[in-house]
Formats: sequence, C-alpha cells, structure tokens
Amino acid sequence: MDMQNRRSNFNFITYQMCRNNTAKQKFNFKFFVLPLLFCSLLFQASGQKSIRLTDNWQFLKSDLGSIWEAWRPATPGSPQSVPLWQSINLPHCFNARDAVDPDVNYYQGPGWYRTRLSLDNPYQGGHTYLHFEGAGQKTKVYIDTILVGEHVGGYDMWTVDITAAVAAVKRRADFKGQIPLAIRCDNSRDVEMIPSDMSDFNLYGGLYRYVDLVYEPAIAIQSSRITPVLSADLKTATIDVQLAIRAGGPSEKAEIQTEVLDPGGKAVANTTKRINLTASNQEAGRIRLPQFALKSPAIWSPAHPQLYTVITTLRAGGQVYTKKDQIGFRNFEFKQKGPFFLNGQRLLLRGTHRHEDHAGLGAAMTENLIRREMILIKEMGANFIRLAHYQQSPIVLRLCDSLGLLVWEEIPWCRGGLGNEIYQAQGKAMLTHMIEQHYNHPSVIIWGMGNEIDWPGDFPTFEKTAIRTYLKSLNELAHQLDPSRKTGLRRCDFASDLVDIYSPSIWAGWYRGIYTEYKSVSREEFEKVPRFIHIEWGADSHAGRHSESPDKALSLIKKGAGADERAGDASLFGGAARASKDGDWSETYACNLIDWHLKEQETMPWLTGAAYWIFKDFSTPLRPDNPVPYVNQKGVVERDLTKKEAYFVFQSYWTKKPMAHIYGHSWPIRWGDEGEEKMVKVYSNCDQAELFINGVSMGSRKRNSQDFPAAGLRWQVPMKAGHYRFKVIATKDGKTVTDQLEQDYQSAKWAQPAKLVLEKLSQNGDTTTLQVKLYDQHQVMCLDGQNIVHFSLAGDGQLLDDLGTSSGSRKVQLYNGRAEIRVIRPEGNNIGEQRSALSVQSKNLPTAILDF
Amino acid sequence: MDMQNRRSNFNFITYQMCRNNTAKQKFNFKFFVLPLLFCSLLFQASGQKSIRLTDNWQFLKSDLGSIWEAWRPATPGSPQSVPLWQSINLPHCFNARDAVDPDVNYYQGPGWYRTRLSLDNPYQGGHTYLHFEGAGQKTKVYIDTILVGEHVGGYDMWTVDITAAVAAVKRRADFKGQIPLAIRCDNSRDVEMIPSDMSDFNLYGGLYRYVDLVYEPAIAIQSSRITPVLSADLKTATIDVQLAIRAGGPSEKAEIQTEVLDPGGKAVANTTKRINLTASNQEAGRIRLPQFALKSPAIWSPAHPQLYTVITTLRAGGQVYTKKDQIGFRNFEFKQKGPFFLNGQRLLLRGTHRHEDHAGLGAAMTENLIRREMILIKEMGANFIRLAHYQQSPIVLRLCDSLGLLVWEEIPWCRGGLGNEIYQAQGKAMLTHMIEQHYNHPSVIIWGMGNEIDWPGDFPTFEKTAIRTYLKSLNELAHQLDPSRKTGLRRCDFASDLVDIYSPSIWAGWYRGIYTEYKSVSREEFEKVPRFIHIEWGADSHAGRHSESPDKALSLIKKGAGADERAGDASLFGGAARASKDGDWSETYACNLIDWHLKEQETMPWLTGAAYWIFKDFSTPLRPDNPVPYVNQKGVVERDLTKKEAYFVFQSYWTKKPMAHIYGHSWPIRWGDEGEEKMVKVYSNCDQAELFINGVSMGSRKRNSQDFPAAGLRWQVPMKAGHYRFKVIATKDGKTVTDQLEQDYQSAKWAQPAKLVLEKLSQNGDTTTLQVKLYDQHQVMCLDGQNIVHFSLAGDGQLLDDLGTSSGSRKVQLYNGRAEIRVIRPEGNNIGEQRSALSVQSKNLPTAILDF
Repeated sequence: MDMQNRRSNFNFITYQMCRNNTAKQKFNFKFFVLPLLFCSLLFQASGQKSIRLTDNWQFLKSDLGSIWEAWRPATPGSPQSVPLWQSINLPHCFNARDAVDPDVNYYQGPGWYRTRLSLDNPYQGGHTYLHFEGAGQKTKVYIDTILVGEHVGGYDMWTVDITAAVAAVKRRADFKGQIPLAIRCDNSRDVEMIPSDMSDFNLYGGLYRYVDLVYEPAIAIQSSRITPVLSADLKTATIDVQLAIRAGGPSEKAEIQTEVLDPGGKAVANTTKRINLTASNQEAGRIRLPQFALKSPAIWSPAHPQLYTVITTLRAGGQVYTKKDQIGFRNFEFKQKGPFFLNGQRLLLRGTHRHEDHAGLGAAMTENLIRREMILIKEMGANFIRLAHYQQSPIVLRLCDSLGLLVWEEIPWCRGGLGNEIYQAQGKAMLTHMIEQHYNHPSVIIWGMGNEIDWPGDFPTFEKTAIRTYLKSLNELAHQLDPSRKTGLRRCDFASDLVDIYSPSIWAGWYRGIYTEYKSVSREEFEKVPRFIHIEWGADSHAGRHSESPDKALSLIKKGAGADERAGDASLFGGAARASKDGDWSETYACNLIDWHLKEQETMPWLTGAAYWIFKDFSTPLRPDNPVPYVNQKGVVERDLTKKEAYFVFQSYWTKKPMAHIYGHSWPIRWGDEGEEKMVKVYSNCDQAELFINGVSMGSRKRNSQDFPAAGLRWQVPMKAGHYRFKVIATKDGKTVTDQLEQDYQSAKWAQPAKLVLEKLSQNGDTTTLQVKLYDQHQVMCLDGQNIVHFSLAGDGQLLDDLGTSSGSRKVQLYNGRAEIRVIRPEGNNIGEQRSALSVQSKNLPTAILDF
Repeated sequence: MDMQNRRSNFNFITYQMCRNNTAKQKFNFKFFVLPLLFCSLLFQASGQKSIRLTDNWQFLKSDLGSIWEAWRPATPGSPQSVPLWQSINLPHCFNARDAVDPDVNYYQGPGWYRTRLSLDNPYQGGHTYLHFEGAGQKTKVYIDTILVGEHVGGYDMWTVDITAAVAAVKRRADFKGQIPLAIRCDNSRDVEMIPSDMSDFNLYGGLYRYVDLVYEPAIAIQSSRITPVLSADLKTATIDVQLAIRAGGPSEKAEIQTEVLDPGGKAVANTTKRINLTASNQEAGRIRLPQFALKSPAIWSPAHPQLYTVITTLRAGGQVYTKKDQIGFRNFEFKQKGPFFLNGQRLLLRGTHRHEDHAGLGAAMTENLIRREMILIKEMGANFIRLAHYQQSPIVLRLCDSLGLLVWEEIPWCRGGLGNEIYQAQGKAMLTHMIEQHYNHPSVIIWGMGNEIDWPGDFPTFEKTAIRTYLKSLNELAHQLDPSRKTGLRRCDFASDLVDIYSPSIWAGWYRGIYTEYKSVSREEFEKVPRFIHIEWGADSHAGRHSESPDKALSLIKKGAGADERAGDASLFGGAARASKDGDWSETYACNLIDWHLKEQETMPWLTGAAYWIFKDFSTPLRPDNPVPYVNQKGVVERDLTKKEAYFVFQSYWTKKPMAHIYGHSWPIRWGDEGEEKMVKVYSNCDQAELFINGVSMGSRKRNSQDFPAAGLRWQVPMKAGHYRFKVIATKDGKTVTDQLEQDYQSAKWAQPAKLVLEKLSQNGDTTTLQVKLYDQHQVMCLDGQNIVHFSLAGDGQLLDDLGTSSGSRKVQLYNGRAEIRVIRPEGNNIGEQRSALSVQSKNLPTAILDF
C-alpha cells in the first residue's frame, strides 16, 4: 500500500505468440520486467527495455477500407484526409462514454489505432515486441501494411514479435525512420466468441489496457513458473523454479544466476547453473533449477502480505537478461463441509468483486486509478476478491499480492450456452493463458471456470450434457496446468459436482425471498455440495436515495421459496414481487440488507466465505431502465469511486482501525410527522458510541453485532421540522473517532409533484455543480420523488454526463426529490463571461431552465 | 408532370437473382408491374401482386452476433431484449442525420432491419419474391435464420426468391403464420468495392430505396427488352420486343398477347403468339415477338415527351401475367465535332446533375420527394440530366421519361484507382444491371463508364494502362448490351479515346482560372476529341450569403493556365489562388459565374451541351470544413430543395414561360456608402423589364443575353440608408410578370465583430425560426461576417439540425453576419408552456443565450 511496498512489485507475465489464426496458436513463452513506478521509458543496464506506449495515438471509430488507408499520404482537405481520426492516449476504450449513454446502444464494431514509433533496439540480434496487457475483443496488429499478429479474447495478455517487419519497413526511405504501427480492435457481437453478449457487463472495445514496446536480447527468459511450497507447520518452505528460454541460435552457452530476497530485501538463497541451449533443450520448453529450501519463512497472508523476490539473471553472448518475480509462502485448504483455512487457521473469506470499468473511461483504467480502487477495497476490510468475470490486468494481481487480497480469478464463460469448436477453443485458450500468466501470484487460490453457464439464449438449442462435458474438460485442464489451486464455479446447479468449490445463486432479499432468510437458505445450499462458497449477494442502490421506510416492499414478497435468482428475476418488469423490482432501491435498504448478512456471517462457523456483488457500480448493456441507465447499481461505491453509505457498513464489521459513520451523509432532508421518533444509525466498529444532537447527548450505546440494525448503535430520536447537527463520538481500544452530519427535518406533507426548480449548488474551479429539486404546487419539496429527469445544456461548457453515476447522467431517476449534475466550463475559444443554460425535463412536469 | 401523365407511367424493371456469392451471379430476368400511384397493397385481377413494404420495420445500427439474435424470444428487461431496436419506416438510410453531423464521421458499418410478414400468395404454384430497388452497399436477406439472398452494390436493382424458405418456415407453429424477415445492410469501407470512399459523396447504408413483396404466377414474364426504332425522316417506326419467360415446368403451353397503345391510349397494334415453354426455349432466355411497324409515330422529345405503352399478357395454366412498358420514339446523334441532334434537329443539351440525397433523409428519398425534385429540375429549364454517379431509382427514370429529360446514367466507378478481380467483376455487374434494367427508358442516351478515374489513392500503386484496359472492357460490354446508346466518360484525359463521348474537367472560375475563360478553354478541349461534351461546371455558394463585391478574388487568380481541376484544387487549404478557396462563396458570385456560362453557351454552335454541377446541395464525407460542414454547396437549390438565387438565372436563359426575379430575396440588408450607386439585377426571360423603387420607375431595360450581367436587365441605383421596396414588371409575348423585394440599405460602417444577438424570427405551427446576428461594439451589424457559429439547445424541443442547409446546421458559417436555425417543439411528455434556451457560440465572441 505504501510506496516502498509497491517499489518491489514486479510484473510477471507469460503470454502467447499469435501470428496466424487462433485455432493454430503457438505457445511460446517469454518474460520481461515492467516495474510499476515508471510509466515511460525504462532502461535497465542489466536487463531489457520496456516502454509503455501511452502518447501520440490516433483513433478511428470505424473500419478502414484497407490497411493502406491508414498510411496513404493525405494533404489537408484531400479525399485521403477523411475519415477524421481523433488524438487519444492509451489506455483507451471505444465505449468510455457510450456504455452508459441513455440514448444509444454502445458501439460494437471495429476501431483503429495508429501511431508512428521511433525504434532503437539496443540489443544486437535482439527482438522487438509489442506486448498487450489485454485488448477488446479481437485484435489485429500491422506494421505499415504487414499483418504481424492477431488475437481473439479481450482479457488475456499476448505479444507480437515485430522484429522482422520492422527490419523490412526500415529499409523504406519515406518513413524517415518512423515505424507505422496500426492496430484494429473489434468488439462486434459474435455468439461464437466468449464472453456472451448476454453477460451483465459490456464487451468493451479498444486498447483498454497498456501496450508496451519491448526490446530483448538475442537470448531471453520467456517465462518463469515459480512454485513456493510452505510446510504444514509453516516452519520450512521450498521454491521450485522452471524457466523457458528463448535462444538466439541452435546452440549457445549460457549462465543462469538465481537469487532469493526475503521481504526485507535480504538475500537468503542463490544458485548458478550453466546451460547449453541446444535445440532439444529448447523443445523441452522449460529448464528446471535446483530447488531452494528455506527455514522459518516469512508467511504471506491478507494481514501480512509478505513477499519474497526471485531474481533470475541470464547471461549469454555478452548480453544480460534479468527477471524479477515476487512470490509468497502460504498454504490453504477448503475443508470438506467448510470452513476455509489459511496457513492452518480458519479465515472467513470476506469478499467482494470487481469489473474493470470506471466512470468516463469504460475499461481503460489507468494504473493509478486501479491502485486507488484496490486500496479502497482493502480499506473496506475485504480479504478476498473475485475478479469478475474475466482475467484482469496484471496491475490488479500485483496489488492483490501486495495488499493481501485472496483471489478467485475466472474466465468469461458466462451465460448464453455453449458455442462451436471456435468458441470452445477460445475458452480453453483463455483458461490456459490466465493460469500460465498469473501462476506466480500468491494471492490466487481459485481458478473460476465460468459464471451462470446454466443460462441459455445465444443459440436455438441448449444441452446440459454438452455444458457438463465442456466444463469437465476445462476443470481437468485447470488442474493439469496448476495442481496447486482449486477450481470454482458459480451458478450452474446441474454441474456443481464437476468443480472443487461451488457457489449456488443466493440473493436473499433482492432477486428472491427476504434477507432474513439468508442464513437458512445458505445452510440448505451448503448441505448440497462438498465445498460451498457464497459468491454474489447484494442489492442495487441508487446513490443519494434514502428511505424512511426501506423495508416497506418486504411485506409483498413471498418467503420460503428460496433465494436463488431465476429467469426473469433481474428484469424490472413482470413476475412475482421481489425487492429488485418492487423495492425502493434506496441506500437505506441496501445498508439493512448488508448489515443483516454481515451480522449473520459472524455466526456461521461452517462458512468458507462470501463475496458481496459488487464493490463498484459498473456499466452493463442489459439494464437500460435502471435509475442510472445502463448501470448495475449494486456497488458500495459509485462508478467514480464515490462511497455510498454501504461502504461504512462493511467497515463496521470487517475493519480493525476505529471508525464511525452516521448514516445519511448524502441525505440532506429527512421527513415525517412533527415529533415522530426517527432512528439515527451509526455504523462503527467501536465498542461504544455516544450520539449528540445539536450538542446534546442522546446517550451511549454498546456495540453488539447481533443487535440488528447497526449492531445496536442506533437511537430513536423524536424530530421536529428544523435543522439538526448530529455528532457521534465512538471509542475502541482507548482510541476515539468522531463523525458529524448536518440534516434538515421536514414535517410538511407534499401533494403531487408540480414543479422542478434548478439551482446552482457549488463551484469548484471550472466545474459547476447544479441541482434540480421537485416541489408540489405549495412549494413543499417532494422528498420521495423518483421521477425520471433529463438534463440538457446549451452554451458554454459541457455536461459531465455519461458517467454512470447518480450525479453524472443526463437521464436519471431523482433521489429524494432531487438530482445533481455538473457542468465543466474550461476556458474556451470564446471570450467574455461563460454563459450557459441548463434545462431539466420530466414527464408531466413543466420544463425548468437555469441560466448561469 | 400532371396526374394524368403520371397515371400512365409504369415501372419496368429487370433484375438479377442472386443467391450465392456475387462472383457466381446467375442472370435470371423477371418483370412485374408497379404502378406509381399506389404505394400500398396492389392487386391486379389480370396480373400479379406487389406490395411496398414501408411499415412495421425495426432497425439496429450495429451488427448482430448471429441471425438468431434477431428472432430469439425476448421478454422485457431480459438479456435477450438488448440491443434496443428502433421502429422505422422504409425507405430508411443509416446516415439520414450523421452524413452532415459536424462532429462525427458518418457511420460506415453493418445495420439490420427486421419485420414479420403475413404472406398469402394467391397463385397456385407461384413464386414469392422480395424486390429491392437498391440497398447500400452489401446486403444479406434472411427468412427466419435462412440466408435467402445477398447482393453487393448499392444502386442496382435485385430480387430474392423466398418461395422455398417461406414454405419451410411456415411449417413452424411458433411463428403463428408470420414470416420473420431480416435484412443486413453494410456500408463499411472497402477499397475493393465500387464506389470508392474517395468519392465526393457518401456511400450510404440502408434500405434507402423501396423494398417490394411480389407474388407471381407459376409462369411469368421475367423481363422485356423493347427496342423502338424511329426512321431518320421521323415518318415510320418499328418496335422489337424480346421477352424472357420463367416457366413453371419442363413443358407448358402458353399464349402471349401484345398490344401497343399510343400516347392517347388508343390501341395501334397487336399480336398474339402461342409458345411451348420447353426447356430449350427457357435456356435460350428470350422470346422474340414479331416486329411491330407504325406509321406517323408520335415523337418523344424533351418538349413533348410522348410515350407509347406496350401491354404484354401471358396466359398459361389458367393464370395470367400482365406487363406494361412505356417506350418513346426518338433518334439522336452526337455529330463528330458536334453539335447534338435529336430527331434531326440541333438540341443544346442544357443539363444538370442529381445525387439521391436529401436533408434529413440521406438517400432515403420518398417517391413524392423525388417527383418534386425532378419537376423543379424540369421547371428550371433543363432538358438533360446526368444521374451522378450511379444507377438511380426506377422512379427517377420514369420521371425523366415522362417529364422529358435526356439522361446520362453511369456506374459509380469513381476515383481511387482500379481494384482487384472482385472490384472489377462488381463494376461489370453494375454496368450490366444498369443497362438491362433501364434499357427500355427512352430518356436514356448515354451510359457513363465512370468519373474521375484518373484520380489515384485507394491503392499503393496506380497504373494508367490497367485503367485503360478495364475501361475498354466496360465500353465493349456496354455496346454489346446496348448498341443503341453511346458511352460516355468524364475526366480521364489519358483514356478519352476509349469512349464515344468525352467530357474533360472544365471549372473556369472555380477550381482554376476565371469564368471569362470558359469559352476559350472549352473550345481548346473540344478540339482534342471527336465528340466533346461539358459535364460538370459550377461554383459553391453558401445559401443566404450575398456580396457587394463578389468578383473581388478574381484579381488574385492566374489566367491562361487552363480551367481543369487538378490534385488539391478542391481543398480549402494550400496551393495557388482560386475562387473555390479564395472567393467568398456568395450566391452573388455563383450567379455571375452561371450567368456568364449561359450567356456564352448561346454563342457556341458547335457545343453538344453542358451540365451544371449540381442541381441540389448534397452531402459528402470530403468537405468537413465547408460553410455548411460536409455539404457540397454547388446546388442551385439547397439540400431541402429551397431555391437559391441561381435557380432563377437558369430559368432566365432556359425557360419560355415568362418569369422575372429581382436578385437578393434572401439578402435582407445591402451595404455601402451613403449615396453609392448599387447594381440591382433582374433575372428574367422577358424581352423587357421596368424596375420600380418605392413606387418610382427606374426605367425600362431590354433583354440582350450577350449583355452581361443579367442580360442587360440591371439598374445602377444611388442608395442611402433606409428601407427599399423593389418591384419589377416584365413583359414577354404580351404577358406580364412581376416580382417584388424589400431590402434595407446600411451605410453605417462596422468595426470588429464584438457581439452575437439571438432573436426569434417567426413561429410556424410547432416550429420556431430563430436568428443570430453579429454586431460590432457600437451595435452596427457586421454585414460581411462569416464567423463560424455553433448553436445548441437546452429544454423542450429539438434543433432542426444535421440537415445540411444553411439554416439547418448547428455548426455553420454566418451569411452576411447572420444565420438562422429552427427548433421544433411538438407536444411532448411534459406539461405547461414549452421552455427552451438556444445558445450560439463563436470563437473570440461572447456566447449568447435566448430563452424562449
């Protein structure tokens, strides 16, 4: 989490060379070092060189008529100068905005990137590569007009050797030493591609993860597979290192030096091996080094994510290649019938999930932003994460290692059914790449085989036996590639016997049943399989929406009929009553649901763990009618990482560092009768807390996790119309924390909504925050107003919309009769005062306009 | 032009059956009757049935993952319910708006259409077809999930036999008798497809021409090829009729009755033939009927477009198929070294051009709109039209026949170079289809082989010999398919010897040289080829922009260096001075240029003809920086058919019906010094005209076409600041016509632009017209202001933008310091008064906002 820790994080990647079609993939392995802290040019005297290609790119959201169109001479105004390309930086996602544009389907089609590179490989006889951390979803790479590589699959890493093409192109005088590089990405719909377009997330297009230019010596380490084994008594450990070497010729003498550094940076073991890189050795693929043995190893765990470093140096023909890998010593066991043990002790897996998705960026998250998100997850108290629903960036895995988050990582076989041989080959390739590329990460404990693969729809037919057969082959492949981890699967009851760890669907209180049924339903499901885990539970909440009667809809909902999501349950239309359709989508309800689940999990000693769906709101093509259109709003933070109230519920159960949070920081006005008693809740991990209202103590409460809600830290307060200052002082282990909140209370009753009023809330630099409020005809604010409003802007600046947040969407449901929107007005081409008009429209209401 | 005339217009089409890939096209010919006046269901007791499929379509601007995605069951809110389709009517163009959206490249990719048909073929053993008048640019047709046909080429007609697929699908109970029809169109860029994306027009996507459902008897006439021959002395004529019959079995007796009606509807000839439809007859393809001979035939000409009707009735197996074709008797000759003779008399071809393109519709023009446009062309006085740059809708050809417009129709081999064998095969297929499908139209005189095929860019290499070889093969193919017409080509000097009629590039006063060089340059070019025609001359003009010194830029322009457009001349950037780059793009300049050309054409007895480029402004991907972005503004009417002043210049030279038009109807304020003499021009075909200002006569002028400008109908008027009422009274052949114009005169001088002011101009139903005006700091209007302004709207209604007109673009150059924009506010979802805010922004000026 601190800089020192990150400084010792090194990238370890294995990837696939793919030149022809994916059906004929060659598996060559290669490694290189990519230190996290340097985003531009890197040169390591002892090793190899890697450059992140972030700047000077152009993008075209269209196909070209031929690769020649990317490079033909084009004078201004000529027919060759169109279509117009756009200047962008990498990473870049086609769908940064349109994924959550309320008015269009997100773009699914081809797009092109182009740049010109000044290349200078310092290694005589060396190789030049382009390395892709992931690109969506089908990609072709061209040097000038030469196709040098292609890849199918939006989430695994891959590389292209451009050495020969660069040499060919360099001879051409007209490029003046600059090498033209063009990349075609394509996220067109294709039922024979994994993942399915029925998935509850966008199949993003673009170079949404980093692309690196890599120079390597003639001889290089292509991959390392490092297996640390920790003894059951935790007292000894061994390290097994296998390397794949790319040789420069048919026979070459080389020396391999390997050194192991402990978490403090102290060398604790080393070995030297001389090898002869004959053709037969190369074919064997891997060189095995003598095993290292360590005594009293430092143990890796979520609480203490201690990492060792393995430095391997290859010297041959006067050139040097250095590789650094980080590993950790831990052992784990999913006991039959639970629970989960890490390093010999029970650990309740307190998990959540993440997609690679962010407001304004789509999948194109920068390293800084990923780090910020992962730190927030850790600070929420999680010790476990499912990387849903696909292999994620190496940056994420390094952060899981260094922050201490156990990982379930999976391939995106997700819904729709089973495709043809191309589809199935892609699934196996993705599984192979995920395991090969992330094998060394100590954080990984489960390889996921798929998600909701019992869900038909992409093909006219759906056969359970075919699903089982394919799943079985995936499961066997995973075990064969990595005997040290377990396989997992979520939601396909007819195949639960085929994997090591199984999660059924349990959505108590959301898609089916009520949340108080959570424990009994879980126990029932637990009984059905040898190793149970509960992956995915939660509730949508519209950030900023709060409720005085959050559980009102519960009375409509049938109990005792299970809590699994079934066909149609995720829809907002039709079917039986359920919280997801009939509830108010308030943060209040989500907090109660989460509070209940976490309380119960404290008294489920047989439980391996559970993972809340999901940490962050994310975009999906499936939910155009959500309060924030096209956003799955189950996050405990918004799509821009703004915390919802639920974040603090998790902290109150999962963290140790003292915290206290009065519920309702985004709830400016509560309501009820004059003098009505209202519950004020404090989410805190402290032993006791005292509430003050307008400076007057309301008394102390002691925390008792089994006293729902808010673990007993709640006060019934008679309230009258007016302004309130709430303050809590909470104590834990002799340390005191406080939280404050100002809130109004409205006892005036409102009639039908009659009027929208716009107002300017604040100004921050060039960003103006504005708000619409809903009133009845007597100027009483309608505090439960959920009307859908549409914002539009004329004049200077632009709406900060298409962000997929409740204050960043031009079409949005009101939360408590209000909604915010921001306008950015940087200095423009025009002169004088910035002038803009914001409007808000809503069905059956007069339009309002604010000039500002 | 009148209803009676149109009532006797019948459709005659030949088309191609295409089932597999385009390389293996089978040429089956088929005919059916499609009367113009009925747009919905048609049933002719004696014949066959055709239904225009205009309603109940859905459109998706994206590809599908498979055809199954179009039909799979989808409950509301389910993953199968996305992406969201849009309800539309046919004809429909992908690019109705985005072709002229100033902010994006127009969409080039796949799009899908779907509908469900209730089918009921009344003919036992009959066939059911889908007939496409043209679809852009590559199309696949599916019944349910069955691919029933595909076609490449966006302009020729084609048909798909769906009989078998319908029978297969009808058996399925789940469709409840409705037949699912899905059509995938694709206008993706492809250098191996004709036309080139370097063309100065959009390669539109979509079902932008009518799609018909056709029922036919078991035996039907597939095509008729009717050759009317008029004797040189015009006294006798013959008609040769060839038919292709589709038989229902290996051998079938049939009777063919043919009747010829004269233009008055009187039967003048008939014949009956009994045939035995043996297999060998069918293979022969065509049945030749006995030749008809007529005496004293009514002659077809632009002045008297008299049409005969040939009615052919096929009776077989108790079923009847009737076909009606319209033909005309005319002969023509392009004399070596000119001029052109029609029916033995010299006719100066007074031509213009049209694209299928319209404001708000792209290529999806309705029949009514096409008719309106063609009538305007006729009323302008044209007798000739080049259908640029591709085969056009059969509606257009029927109108040319009935209105009397001689036609040059061409294939879209246009710029870029020569592609591979697929490209070349497509070019030949397009030529074949154009000639076969439009053979019977008397209006056609020239088949065009291509345009600007000397322009390289789509391929790394460009070989003149390859261009010549391919052109030669096209030319031979055209003559082989139709010995009765001539071949033409515009602008490829190195191949001018390969076609019958050749037009070089002459753009005097626009892309090169000045307009007074027009005649001498034309004469020089005339000398170079045996048969010269001048296709394409003209000037861009920004509708509503007028100039007090339109010829100012002429002094910068080099004379005597030719008038041909060369590489880079069409660009707004770089190169030598030229009117197209350095001129003011005013209507005033365009009128002068046209005036001069028309004057000169009256004294060029050797001239076959010339065609003004172009009748109507049209969209192009090549001109993002034009005053109206992405619009080629050379039209004499705007893209919505609003007349520019130039329309009346043409009328003054080309029409006989008396007309008079005072220049400047869209010029509200003229300017100059106090008391300065200003020229007031009247464009009129009258012998004399008298001008009145504020009721006072300024004297009479006699028309003399050689007295430039305005054929002498001009007055020098000393003007002072104030308001003027102009009136002209003109007389021709004893008939009097008048025109009136109110205009202000401003003598106040303006400084730098300082302020934009918005005002509401008018209200028409739910449409509000607004205007921005540009002022200096002293409130003096800047009457030569050309600033680029951007409109935006917040609140109710929507901008009527993306229309490609000077009052229908949200980004537009001012014309005389002003610009209009319209807002439409139909009754919406909201209540109360409509509220909107219009803003206008411009570089270096403060933004203005108007609430209204």
